[in-house]
Amino acid sequence: MNILAFGEVMLRFTVADKMMLEQSDSLTVTTVGTGVNLLSSLAHFGYNTTILTTIPDNPVGEKTVSDLRKLGISDKRILRNGKSMGSFFVELGHGSRPERVTYQDRLSSSFSQMNYENYDFEKALIGIDVVHICGIALSLTKQTQLAAIKLAQEAHDRNKVVCFDFNYRISLNQENNHDSIKKRYQKMLPYVDILFGSKRDLTDLLDYQDDNETNLYEKLCNEYQINFFAGSRRSFIDSKKYFEGFIFHHGKLYRSQARELNILDRIGSGDAFASGILTGLFEKWDFEDTLEFAVANSVLAQSTMNDVPIFSKEDVFNYIDNSQQDLIR
Amino acid sequence: MNILAFGEVMLRFTVADKMMLEQSDSLTVTTVGTGVNLLSSLAHFGYNTTILTTIPDNPVGEKTVSDLRKLGISDKRILRNGKSMGSFFVELGHGSRPERVTYQDRLSSSFSQMNYENYDFEKALIGIDVVHICGIALSLTKQTQLAAIKLAQEAHDRNKVVCFDFNYRISLNQENNHDSIKKRYQKMLPYVDILFGSKRDLTDLLDYQDDNETNLYEKLCNEYQINFFAGSRRSFIDSKKYFEGFIFHHGKLYRSQARELNILDRIGSGDAFASGILTGLFEKWDFEDTLEFAVANSVLAQSTMNDVPIFSKEDVFNYIDNSQQDLIR
Amino acid sequence: MNILAFGEVMLRFTVADKMMLEQSDSLTVTTVGTGVNLLSSLAHFGYNTTILTTIPDNPVGEKTVSDLRKLGISDKRILRNGKSMGSFFVELGHGSRPERVTYQDRLSSSFSQMNYENYDFEKALIGIDVVHICGIALSLTKQTQLAAIKLAQEAHDRNKVVCFDFNYRISLNQENNHDSIKKRYQKMLPYVDILFGSKRDLTDLLDYQDDNETNLYEKLCNEYQINFFAGSRRSFIDSKKYFEGFIFHHGKLYRSQARELNILDRIGSGDAFASGILTGLFEKWDFEDTLEFAVANSVLAQSTMNDVPIFSKEDVFNYIDNSQQDLIR
Amino acid sequence: MNILAFGEVMLRFTVADKMMLEQSDSLTVTTVGTGVNLLSSLAHFGYNTTILTTIPDNPVGEKTVSDLRKLGISDKRILRNGKSMGSFFVELGHGSRPERVTYQDRLSSSFSQMNYENYDFEKALIGIDVVHICGIALSLTKQTQLAAIKLAQEAHDRNKVVCFDFNYRISLNQENNHDSIKKRYQKMLPYVDILFGSKRDLTDLLDYQDDNETNLYEKLCNEYQINFFAGSRRSFIDSKKYFEGFIFHHGKLYRSQARELNILDRIGSGDAFASGILTGLFEKWDFEDTLEFAVANSVLAQSTMNDVPIFSKEDVFNYIDNSQQDLIR
Amino acid sequence: MNILAFGEVMLRFTVADKMMLEQSDSLTVTTVGTGVNLLSSLAHFGYNTTILTTIPDNPVGEKTVSDLRKLGISDKRILRNGKSMGSFFVELGHGSRPERVTYQDRLSSSFSQMNYENYDFEKALIGIDVVHICGIALSLTKQTQLAAIKLAQEAHDRNKVVCFDFNYRISLNQENNHDSIKKRYQKMLPYVDILFGSKRDLTDLLDYQDDNETNLYEKLCNEYQINFFAGSRRSFIDSKKYFEGFIFHHGKLYRSQARELNILDRIGSGDAFASGILTGLFEKWDFEDTLEFAVANSVLAQSTMNDVPIFSKEDVFNYIDNSQQDLIR
Amino acid sequence: MNILAFGEVMLRFTVADKMMLEQSDSLTVTTVGTGVNLLSSLAHFGYNTTILTTIPDNPVGEKTVSDLRKLGISDKRILRNGKSMGSFFVELGHGSRPERVTYQDRLSSSFSQMNYENYDFEKALIGIDVVHICGIALSLTKQTQLAAIKLAQEAHDRNKVVCFDFNYRISLNQENNHDSIKKRYQKMLPYVDILFGSKRDLTDLLDYQDDNETNLYEKLCNEYQINFFAGSRRSFIDSKKYFEGFIFHHGKLYRSQARELNILDRIGSGDAFASGILTGLFEKWDFEDTLEFAVANSVLAQSTMNDVPIFSKEDVFNYIDNSQQDLIR
Repeated sequence: MNILAFGEVMLRFTVADKMMLEQSDSLTVTTVGTGVNLLSSLAHFGYNTTILTTIPDNPVGEKTVSDLRKLGISDKRILRNGKSMGSFFVELGHGSRPERVTYQDRLSSSFSQMNYENYDFEKALIGIDVVHICGIALSLTKQTQLAAIKLAQEAHDRNKVVCFDFNYRISLNQENNHDSIKKRYQKMLPYVDILFGSKRDLTDLLDYQDDNETNLYEKLCNEYQINFFAGSRRSFIDSKKYFEGFIFHHGKLYRSQARELNILDRIGSGDAFASGILTGLFEKWDFEDTLEFAVANSVLAQSTMNDVPIFSKEDVFNYIDNSQQDLIR
Repeated sequence: MNILAFGEVMLRFTVADKMMLEQSDSLTVTTVGTGVNLLSSLAHFGYNTTILTTIPDNPVGEKTVSDLRKLGISDKRILRNGKSMGSFFVELGHGSRPERVTYQDRLSSSFSQMNYENYDFEKALIGIDVVHICGIALSLTKQTQLAAIKLAQEAHDRNKVVCFDFNYRISLNQENNHDSIKKRYQKMLPYVDILFGSKRDLTDLLDYQDDNETNLYEKLCNEYQINFFAGSRRSFIDSKKYFEGFIFHHGKLYRSQARELNILDRIGSGDAFASGILTGLFEKWDFEDTLEFAVANSVLAQSTMNDVPIFSKEDVFNYIDNSQQDLIR
Repeated sequence: MNILAFGEVMLRFTVADKMMLEQSDSLTVTTVGTGVNLLSSLAHFGYNTTILTTIPDNPVGEKTVSDLRKLGISDKRILRNGKSMGSFFVELGHGSRPERVTYQDRLSSSFSQMNYENYDFEKALIGIDVVHICGIALSLTKQTQLAAIKLAQEAHDRNKVVCFDFNYRISLNQENNHDSIKKRYQKMLPYVDILFGSKRDLTDLLDYQDDNETNLYEKLCNEYQINFFAGSRRSFIDSKKYFEGFIFHHGKLYRSQARELNILDRIGSGDAFASGILTGLFEKWDFEDTLEFAVANSVLAQSTMNDVPIFSKEDVFNYIDNSQQDLIR
Repeated sequence: MNILAFGEVMLRFTVADKMMLEQSDSLTVTTVGTGVNLLSSLAHFGYNTTILTTIPDNPVGEKTVSDLRKLGISDKRILRNGKSMGSFFVELGHGSRPERVTYQDRLSSSFSQMNYENYDFEKALIGIDVVHICGIALSLTKQTQLAAIKLAQEAHDRNKVVCFDFNYRISLNQENNHDSIKKRYQKMLPYVDILFGSKRDLTDLLDYQDDNETNLYEKLCNEYQINFFAGSRRSFIDSKKYFEGFIFHHGKLYRSQARELNILDRIGSGDAFASGILTGLFEKWDFEDTLEFAVANSVLAQSTMNDVPIFSKEDVFNYIDNSQQDLIR
Repeated sequence: MNILAFGEVMLRFTVADKMMLEQSDSLTVTTVGTGVNLLSSLAHFGYNTTILTTIPDNPVGEKTVSDLRKLGISDKRILRNGKSMGSFFVELGHGSRPERVTYQDRLSSSFSQMNYENYDFEKALIGIDVVHICGIALSLTKQTQLAAIKLAQEAHDRNKVVCFDFNYRISLNQENNHDSIKKRYQKMLPYVDILFGSKRDLTDLLDYQDDNETNLYEKLCNEYQINFFAGSRRSFIDSKKYFEGFIFHHGKLYRSQARELNILDRIGSGDAFASGILTGLFEKWDFEDTLEFAVANSVLAQSTMNDVPIFSKEDVFNYIDNSQQDLIR
Repeated sequence: MNILAFGEVMLRFTVADKMMLEQSDSLTVTTVGTGVNLLSSLAHFGYNTTILTTIPDNPVGEKTVSDLRKLGISDKRILRNGKSMGSFFVELGHGSRPERVTYQDRLSSSFSQMNYENYDFEKALIGIDVVHICGIALSLTKQTQLAAIKLAQEAHDRNKVVCFDFNYRISLNQENNHDSIKKRYQKMLPYVDILFGSKRDLTDLLDYQDDNETNLYEKLCNEYQINFFAGSRRSFIDSKKYFEGFIFHHGKLYRSQARELNILDRIGSGDAFASGILTGLFEKWDFEDTLEFAVANSVLAQSTMNDVPIFSKEDVFNYIDNSQQDLIR
């Protein structure tokens, strides 16, 4: 199984020792991004992964390329251009104090500024089975938007499986109006086979109106011929946190059990869930097993520092089978 | 609102990585103290703050001055004298293992040794609305005791609001007898408008005898014309920890709700509570909101490394409004 | 009380900041081992302790010798030979993610390769009251097996108290067959006065068959004239973890209460329990107090980084008396 | 003496332990910039300093504001706007391996994007004696260029001393043509009293043609009524490095002696030199002493981590008087 | 150009902050080895590189595989077997205090224990132009010796260029007699095209006797049809250190100029030199340029932390052209 | 050879990464002191060492005790009393920037405050051959002064070899007048056999007047029956630093050659020299060898982090024999 992802590679600066930015000058830098997170997880599950992106042609860019290789992601489809990596700062949380993310402006990055015509999508798709596109591309620049939609279309035309992740964040879209963003998603969705998102994406972004979750998903999948729609959510009962997921397929909604969370670093939880779902679909596991696997992968990832999941299938299965285990020797 | 605090600036040495002193040679040094903690929190809430203290005239002293400025505290009223900063070591706790504080001897510090006549209280009070005095000054040396009482009196005479924090610790007073310490507090209290303390301070230090909390506080406030008496306490139910606070004002006792604690570093919890109460009083919030704010500020501070609270009002309100939130993006 | 322990000194490499091996190049190295852990704890309880072992004659070996002295263990009976220390890597866990230990091959270490005839057991036993032998020696090499049994026999012949810890790990014995290992333990047990182990050691290793725990222990103690048989176990109720222990003596089984665990690093929990039990036996405390002390020592150790317990008796008593305390000042 | 500087506040990310970016994920972040460096040094020399700049209104921006206060720089004239800080990465050098700086794109920063009309120059100049402007503002955006020139003009009109630093870097100007940049400098220079630069700035940027250094400087100072023109340079003899400076004033060129360099981190060497020169001019020292002081301050700064000089006058004098001293006790 | 190297992948544990082992518990772990170092350097010069080796099938092994990918080395020819990585400790030096390396026993590693028949040399050589073999394989175990010689032979038979590096270390051969080791090298040399070594290897290991260096090299190259013989050496003049190299080809000895060294970490200097030489030969540069490039690459590597060279051609050329430069901006 | 040293155990706080105090909150804490440094070095040379001192009875004190054991120093003669350790901060230097030491007030430490009558000198001297006393004790408090002189007298009476180190620092004696300090030294010297000091101690402290060094030393040794007088000094030629030493014995002055210094951390250089001299005297080496050994030990120590020398005899000999060596493998 060969997977290509299109998306931004970002620098994440995490303040050391659970300190806040005003308290410490020590940072750990990590190479992350929705595509990176997803591909790393899939690479650790044994699949061939390649990222299609643009980074600056300088030592910072080369550092991220070496990090991508380390994660098991091929660096053969990375373009060099411009001067900046997108970046964000993370202050880890503890107990009542939430984890906090502060983005630097993303619109000036090499990825955001790359002219979409510079990507050779045709070449990039050779030998590829599955393409993953992160929805953030629709909110960044005209160029990332054009690139994302063009890639989806080209992949669709070549009968590749197209995965798309809503990843719609209002904070990223303060200067775009609702309708303009909605239209971009509406352009994308006809090419999509596997879609990741939430109920809120359908009601708040696509303006679907229905209180019934199944009806909502049904409507979406019918309108755009979506094969699989999957998503995760978190809940909070008696000061405990839980994580669960669902898949909607051919009119039927499958739900996982909720698993208790003990968060070390929750960023990337959705990407870990998505890579678990894709694995189940690749392996043709039944939906229950798929959901259990995806939720377990995400819960493990949230118990681990950094966005990027690095668990093997064996790690995830071991966790499912021995969830009370506190020492592996 | 301009606040002046009188108190010792101390060096806190925290052992790295939740290790104990025998396990690690790596320390993080922080500039702390009751006055520092309170003023930092008030500065982050938007008030002008100034510390009145003495530090050594050497590179260690200058480091702490630069730290005070960083916290938003004015360094215009800091005297230089002597050679030593007071200091203590912190071994962070985890689960059943409690956090442990070891003080170096505090009586030889620049602050403890400073002749009280060197402080120009009149000048220090120019433009000041509120003065805060930490009760530890009453237990250190004759000089700190005289300085604290003189400042309270001068502030009172000039119609400044005088805040005082009992901060009575038996461990600091092993060489003083009960009656002598009690007398010092009795000299201070007539000047105090806003008082921070606990029931235990009234019964064990002032020798009040009454099982009824309201009666105790009533008696205190009547005897010394205290306008506000406030304090916090922690409780433990089913292996969970909680934190709550109270204000007593004009014969009436107001109590906050208890909030669950998930402690990373609990030192300074009282100072964070006190700065929250002062803010509510400054802003003339009602007592419920004031208590909720003060408890939230303290709970956040206890989820954060180091004594010194650095949350903005917006941070505290956000936490009150979204206490289940585990990621701010 | 003078205690001699025979066992391997190992290097433990712990990945920094709760990271996994693929995520970080920063390690903390610690000098550990069953004998080291036990003796460190006993030394911190006030007893004289000496380790009998072999380390390489190079800077790495000398580093561990200096670490042993730091822990309060005498370095007078350490032989130098060969080139390698046994070692293992630790990735700390968090919440659902278990702590993970990866051993480097232990059979080539200086300890494993040392010819047992080079140990001068007679000299090592001079002035010693109690000898502790770690069962892992029976699984390593012919030489460690011979040394362990010879030492037990020599100690027994000189009326020293012989303690032995099963420490049977299947993962260490993949190339040994069950019967061969069982025979080694059967050779050892006749010399043993105080034995540490679990029900599973009796059923899976010694092939005892009885569902009743008391019967099992009775059978063991009768067969080998074991004076005390003690062990610990962990349980899991409602997503909380607990730790408890037992002693079997003269036909009677004593059980501790279970104490809730909040794990930072659980390796070495059994050694902390064993040193607590030995202390109770040395001090002739009653079995309840002994068990409470041993469980508390282990729970504290599991809330602390690294294998090696470093708590004083006063620390453990303080924890027992104030188990809700979260700050010692 | 009250000094106001206008310039960008930047984040500097230094790779830990002299590693290169590909080798390490550990960074130290520092708040720097030409204005920051100069003002920090002047503040440590005892002058009042204020920065006029724009930072983002988020936790990263607030961190830098707290850092500026720590350095002794007033934060009263800082505007909040936009989302990004300018930033660069530093890989420290060693011996033959040069230190390496990689800039992220600077044009999207809050500072570069701030509309110049939002600055209240009139208010900012109240009580100010000296204004410093960093020439980089002329190369960034139209807005920074307009702001710099407007400030120079307003300051000049109010008889403030205007200092300007060429800081012309070809690498920052790849998209600007020579003539356009030259014109901007020509607009600025008429307002300038104290100018920092090098011979190369005159020949390569201003297109002056004369082999004789004195003639060149004479021409410049005459053309624009520059009162003082000063600069530094480095030389390399027999594998040793040296640093020296000059001042040109009223037709006469004064040169310092060369001082040997032993570089730990050379970024900011020019700013440390400039703050030393300004100090000599403020204090009306003769030119020899001024140059010696400025060179010493810069040599010390290059022996110190980070851009930002933090030496007191006493530190610099002590170094001048005891340049062979290797321990201060 | 596709290069395959056969050799051991090792863990290097470097004590932090130039401390010695007794002084610090903080280590940095790096994935190194002669083959790793050489291939990393060649990968950074733009060639395709693959390592043929064996690592343990556990998280430690997987960590090293991810590190190899990060360095740009293909992980497609790595076998999994056994439990241990070879490892060594490094205490960095400073001034008079030399850097110190302490090896753990290397003979029990997965690489040393791998049965040579498990390597599929035929498959590994597909598409490969150049094979590099590290001479240490001849000193480890019978298996590594057989594997090295078999690979050389197979590569030679298929007309691949065979490079071999003497890497003869007496300390590794204390249990082997001289004649036995010499015979192994004599078996290897007939297959070798490009040989790295020193005069001492010829006199002390191969027992050649001739005072004239050219004669010695001539004899060697004639006897074994060696195409290129190259090596480096260090010298010490007036407390300064220098590094230089030579190539012997078709009867003629070419020498580089000596370049001054300023060592941060000198391990791997020979591998950096060798990769430079190979690059010159691949690119058909003349010998002077090749030697200058190889010496520069090694000098840069010795100014850099860790064994593994990571400089691009551009970095090396830039250093050659600007060797006095101390800042790249 | 059994050596007892009397002196203060101090905490040294070193700022991380060659930063200055204002730049970093990361410290490394080390247990040091003249007695500690000397005994550690002698312990590493193979002698039995014991320290006679007082530390606080708290976790900080216990940490230092464990550190002393780690260094190979017996903890059997350590008293517990009071609450404070003496301490100082170190900012490492680089090139022109000198290393800087800032002492906290030392007079309130457990050691300085200990009543001299609490030391059981008689018991402490049992089995001891050589006693070392650090002259700083004469400058601290009446109690340390009395203890030092009493110990010297008792040791002298029992025919122990008494070593004494002037260690006279004006900065420590700002409140003592010259005559009072001089008298204390005059009381001590009659008991001394081996004396460490400098020419300046004789002229500035003891008020000897003679330009000729030999005459000065002759006078001193005659007046007080000193057997050996030894000392070191540093010089500076052409921007290089050198270190050398001397011994005066029976009217003859022996001088070492000067050795070039490359300083990483020069504190403790005198203690490393003294331990080298003592070793030569213990071993009855001739004076040239003794001086070469002492100078080499000190030069190595100055190339090493921290005060405390930890080199073995073999390390020092190896350095003497191979002083150009930059790698030990």
